[in-house]
Amino acid sequence: MVNAGAMSGSGNLMDFLDEPFPDVGTYEDFHTIDWLREKSRDTDRHRKITSKSKESIWEFIKSLLDAWSGWVVMLLIGLLAGTLAGVIDLAVDWMTDLKEGVCLSAFWYSHEQCCWTSNETTFEDRDKCPLWQKWSELLVNQSEGASAYILNYLMYILWALLFAFLAVSLVRVFAPYACGSGIPEIKTILSGFIIRGYLGKWTLLIKTVTLVLVVSSGLSLGKEGPLVHVACCCGNFFSSLFSKYSKNEGKRREVLSAAAAAGVSVAFGAPIGGVLFSLEEVSYYFPLKTLWRSFFAALVAAFTLRSINPFGNSRLVLFYVEYHTPWRRKTTKLGKYPVLEVIVVTAVTAIIAYPNPYTRRSTSELISELFNDCGALESSQLCDYINDPNMTRPVDDIPDRPAGVGVYTAMWQLALALVFKIVITIFTFGMKIPSGLFIPSMAVGAMAGRMVGIGVEQLAYHHHDWIVFRNWCRPGADCVTPGLYAMVGAAACLGGVTRMTVSLVVIMFELTGGLEYIVPLMAAAVTSKWVADAFGKEGIYEAHIHLNGYPFLDVKDEFTHRTLATDVMRPRRGEPPLSVLTQDSMTVEDVETLIKETDYNGFPVVVSRDSERLIGFAQRRELILAIKNARQRQEGIVSNSIMYFTEEPPELPANSPHPLKLRRVLNLSPFTVTDHTPMETVVDIFRKLGLRQCLVTRSGRLLGIITKKDVLRHMAQMANQDPESIMFN
Amino acid sequence: MVNAGAMSGSGNLMDFLDEPFPDVGTYEDFHTIDWLREKSRDTDRHRKITSKSKESIWEFIKSLLDAWSGWVVMLLIGLLAGTLAGVIDLAVDWMTDLKEGVCLSAFWYSHEQCCWTSNETTFEDRDKCPLWQKWSELLVNQSEGASAYILNYLMYILWALLFAFLAVSLVRVFAPYACGSGIPEIKTILSGFIIRGYLGKWTLLIKTVTLVLVVSSGLSLGKEGPLVHVACCCGNFFSSLFSKYSKNEGKRREVLSAAAAAGVSVAFGAPIGGVLFSLEEVSYYFPLKTLWRSFFAALVAAFTLRSINPFGNSRLVLFYVEYHTPWRRKTTKLGKYPVLEVIVVTAVTAIIAYPNPYTRRSTSELISELFNDCGALESSQLCDYINDPNMTRPVDDIPDRPAGVGVYTAMWQLALALVFKIVITIFTFGMKIPSGLFIPSMAVGAMAGRMVGIGVEQLAYHHHDWIVFRNWCRPGADCVTPGLYAMVGAAACLGGVTRMTVSLVVIMFELTGGLEYIVPLMAAAVTSKWVADAFGKEGIYEAHIHLNGYPFLDVKDEFTHRTLATDVMRPRRGEPPLSVLTQDSMTVEDVETLIKETDYNGFPVVVSRDSERLIGFAQRRELILAIKNARQRQEGIVSNSIMYFTEEPPELPANSPHPLKLRRVLNLSPFTVTDHTPMETVVDIFRKLGLRQCLVTRSGRLLGIITKKDVLRHMAQMANQDPESIMFN
Repeated sequence: MVNAGAMSGSGNLMDFLDEPFPDVGTYEDFHTIDWLREKSRDTDRHRKITSKSKESIWEFIKSLLDAWSGWVVMLLIGLLAGTLAGVIDLAVDWMTDLKEGVCLSAFWYSHEQCCWTSNETTFEDRDKCPLWQKWSELLVNQSEGASAYILNYLMYILWALLFAFLAVSLVRVFAPYACGSGIPEIKTILSGFIIRGYLGKWTLLIKTVTLVLVVSSGLSLGKEGPLVHVACCCGNFFSSLFSKYSKNEGKRREVLSAAAAAGVSVAFGAPIGGVLFSLEEVSYYFPLKTLWRSFFAALVAAFTLRSINPFGNSRLVLFYVEYHTPWRRKTTKLGKYPVLEVIVVTAVTAIIAYPNPYTRRSTSELISELFNDCGALESSQLCDYINDPNMTRPVDDIPDRPAGVGVYTAMWQLALALVFKIVITIFTFGMKIPSGLFIPSMAVGAMAGRMVGIGVEQLAYHHHDWIVFRNWCRPGADCVTPGLYAMVGAAACLGGVTRMTVSLVVIMFELTGGLEYIVPLMAAAVTSKWVADAFGKEGIYEAHIHLNGYPFLDVKDEFTHRTLATDVMRPRRGEPPLSVLTQDSMTVEDVETLIKETDYNGFPVVVSRDSERLIGFAQRRELILAIKNARQRQEGIVSNSIMYFTEEPPELPANSPHPLKLRRVLNLSPFTVTDHTPMETVVDIFRKLGLRQCLVTRSGRLLGIITKKDVLRHMAQMANQDPESIMFN
Repeated sequence: MVNAGAMSGSGNLMDFLDEPFPDVGTYEDFHTIDWLREKSRDTDRHRKITSKSKESIWEFIKSLLDAWSGWVVMLLIGLLAGTLAGVIDLAVDWMTDLKEGVCLSAFWYSHEQCCWTSNETTFEDRDKCPLWQKWSELLVNQSEGASAYILNYLMYILWALLFAFLAVSLVRVFAPYACGSGIPEIKTILSGFIIRGYLGKWTLLIKTVTLVLVVSSGLSLGKEGPLVHVACCCGNFFSSLFSKYSKNEGKRREVLSAAAAAGVSVAFGAPIGGVLFSLEEVSYYFPLKTLWRSFFAALVAAFTLRSINPFGNSRLVLFYVEYHTPWRRKTTKLGKYPVLEVIVVTAVTAIIAYPNPYTRRSTSELISELFNDCGALESSQLCDYINDPNMTRPVDDIPDRPAGVGVYTAMWQLALALVFKIVITIFTFGMKIPSGLFIPSMAVGAMAGRMVGIGVEQLAYHHHDWIVFRNWCRPGADCVTPGLYAMVGAAACLGGVTRMTVSLVVIMFELTGGLEYIVPLMAAAVTSKWVADAFGKEGIYEAHIHLNGYPFLDVKDEFTHRTLATDVMRPRRGEPPLSVLTQDSMTVEDVETLIKETDYNGFPVVVSRDSERLIGFAQRRELILAIKNARQRQEGIVSNSIMYFTEEPPELPANSPHPLKLRRVLNLSPFTVTDHTPMETVVDIFRKLGLRQCLVTRSGRLLGIITKKDVLRHMAQMANQDPESIMFN
């Protein structure tokens, strides 16, 4: 009996799901997809393949290929994302060094590669190998002195300006979508929004190239966010090769979620953290199958990157942020001239950054140095402590020592660098170039953390009889590690900006590789989230999404107001009645007029205007296509043909024109709630099922409609009315 | 305007949500909770507290306490779960050693603790410290020889039987729910099912005590699954202290999800793995807030455990399983006599286990030894290689060597132990005692892996000119690590049984602490999942849930059939019509008769039987309570009083009895779908919104009802019809 029902039911479904004319089932730009429908289309496709697979061996192989295509796509994404990240790393290394000099043996070698084969044995000497020439040595044959310094300074600024100008021009001309970090837009896209071209091939190419340029130019920005965007472009590219993903916007988003995980994985060398980041921060629908595939893609990407870039000099790339975050700067006068803006900011950055060693070098190197503990072999200025000549300790366990001159110099330089970084990052983020916030945020946190760490260390050394130090800082003990303070500071800053929690701790854990640091990291993440939440609940990505007005229904916001569906639905009291179609009494012309005069995305279909009993929902786009198609191909369809959505044509007077059957564009299972449904439940349904709209009924009569935009508008309204309510949950 | 609507709306909602008589809003045992309603009740509670908090400072403090109670509960769970796990570890150590002997200085010392303060300096000698006496030494003053061996053997069996008997009796008499691993039931509970007492205080106490007993008795079982159960009992206990959680079944389940993470965290010392395990395997609804809190609880638990048990000898506790898994054994004749069954299995285990060193010791020690690499100082039989006398290598990097006599003996013993473990685990799992599968499964995998590893190592040593070995196994190189094979084997076995993927890799990663092993582990996890899935899609927990017939709607199953809501709804064709209530024409007696004659959990309320227009849904339990309450307290309510669900009482003849208003038990926003909705969508809605039932309408008329059980029954039916279809996705 079930079967009989199933068959007759399937018949109707076929009628609706079949795609008899082109473009049905696709979406327009800047529209929201219908998740339930995408899912049902995929099930249909899958069912067809399964039933066909029994027919022949070839079909069986095809069905196997289809089943495995998900894994193939993941593999390809991992390989390409890892390769691109590796190439970007190598290119950035070379171009960053190009600002200071050039390698005589081969101009495409970075400083490190140039001196790699040199005969000098110590690190110090190797750094000054004869094959590597500073610009002053090459051009005026001077390596020291004021004129050499000024020439190098000028070359540094020139190269920086050149790189920045190239980058902003490329973005402006070829791929405007390549600017920014891209994560807010990717979040929006993953939630079901369509932004055509945002993940296109041009964006991929231009973003990759310009990312190299802007990072090399020394601007205060990171490559982590943009790498996530690049990985998602790869994901989009590979999913367009397989019809399983290219023809289904829902399935495609599963691939993109995994690609985002691969992006974070290569940005930080942290595959598990990448998966959690994708889960916690980026993705919207994240079925468990995606979790596993994301992990696979993230691993492949991480290992590809490692095999390309064996020095791993870029592994220490994290993400931190400041509370007075830069995204608030939306309108500056300069903003109207994006190229000029970039040039000015680059010039300022280069001029101020060059004299200070902590801003001249690349930010990830800076973070790496700040995180490092001072071993006995460390030559950094930060490790210039006064050694006890009698000390015969092993290399790893060095007791606290008084700071030397170098450390005090470093403290001043760090303080200046900190102020500079905070200010310049605010101006850099939001320019029309690819820019990530992770690295500059982490750098600010690491600098602050290291300074606090050195301060505490010296306090503990000079005052080890104070109560706080007495029990664990005996003379000769190694009780304060300034590098750990830097790491915790970086995590705290990043946590404050992004409001990441678990993924933040896991990424830091993967970067540092020891469970012993998990407690301070966790404390930092918790504290920074609480402090930042007290200033406002939104992380930087959510803030960015709101600024841009994307229709993003955040899973994390809790809606706790007491409103009902009837308060939100349209039409409101006093508004004209809802535009509906009747099932068998409107003419083609009536419908065309209705379509022309309104801009709704779809219309409910009712039995009759009197009874207002709902039978289904018709999409505007599909109605237009169906009518156009019928007028072109079907004979006898004129303006006053009756349109009907029922199975059987209505009874018409004898000489009336041929009626038009439109049942196939009718969605027979529209989503309905009653007018008494709490909005909390409605919001939950919209989020969990990914609806575009929902019809409101009372006692079986159609009352109104609630769209995703109505829900978002209402949520914003309620939040403004009662801003305190969100503080407690 | 929105506000005005909100107010009037709230009025109606109040009417429904207020709890005017006791027990409304609670659930009966073995029933499913209504997630949407629980959520809406929590929002209400929260709203009340927020609005009150503005009235006085005391209320403000109370609201703050309420907001923080979630974190307090997590802290308490972490502390208690960590403490219990630590106590269990210490007790198991002591009682396991008690089977072999006793400490003379203090009988409550384990062998290790007893000899800790001994003066002997080497490990070998320390093991034989004079304070520790074997039973033969204590009773007949003989430490060697056949009679001593037999006496020790007997004592070992006696103690094992005593422990097992105590355990099974305690479970039988005091807490029948304490048997098994508990994870399948916890999964079911988290999906919204009510099993009263399953997480009660008696279960907590008895499971903790009996877990110590059964692990000490040497049965082939692990303590990981039961530890998750114990942690969930802690979570249930603490949530009963806070009205926020005790009065809301939905919120309580958030706490339980986090508690499960804490349980895995202490079982394996793997906090991140615990959180992922809870997310991947156990939890049903896992909001992001829960992710973060789970992580906190897991960390607190892990650190509490570590501070209690500083030797950390139990950290290497994992979870693995075999494909011919033991849960299929549901009906044995012995099964009818649970105590006898336990005694027999324990006796067999003890008799066979004692002579073989690999089965005599505790399973986690065995796994730890199998995972270990053979350093130069290793005294294990497994490391009895023939050393090159000329070798002057550092300690850590030992080249491949030919196996000595010890290794060959170990191979035989391991092979026997492997067979024994597989067989006895099948009989052990399913007995009426607390028992986990993780450790025995891992042990089987580790034994098989180690044997393969040693085989490959010897092959590579003796045939290093074979093609497969030629490039990387030059003589003198350390090219095969048998310990790694054991680890991969353990992961593969566990993955096959539980079908865990990401959490498996993360737990192994946390146990071994190095990213370098992630590739073989990942390959093992993928392969074992694929191979196991080819035999059937269900992991052991899902299989267990199905065997017990719990109403669990798995998030991972994909429903891909083409049936419609109309095929599943009740009444079917030929069945009597749906039992409905009318909004204002039935008498109290009519309703009481209907309640008596049917056993439905609730009834749809329609305008009239003719129009069949749906206005709401009334729960059976609340109807009964409301009528009982009205008959007792309200005057004039007699059997032929009219019951009405409308706002205003219906117009009645002059002398008719006083009508009974029941609008407050009416759910005005029942969930509806149309008869044409694909079952795929219906299943999705049931899963994501956690529904208990859903009404089916066509053109606004009520047609039927679909309950969670109907959905489960239909899914099982379709899966049986077409078992192949699930193979491809």
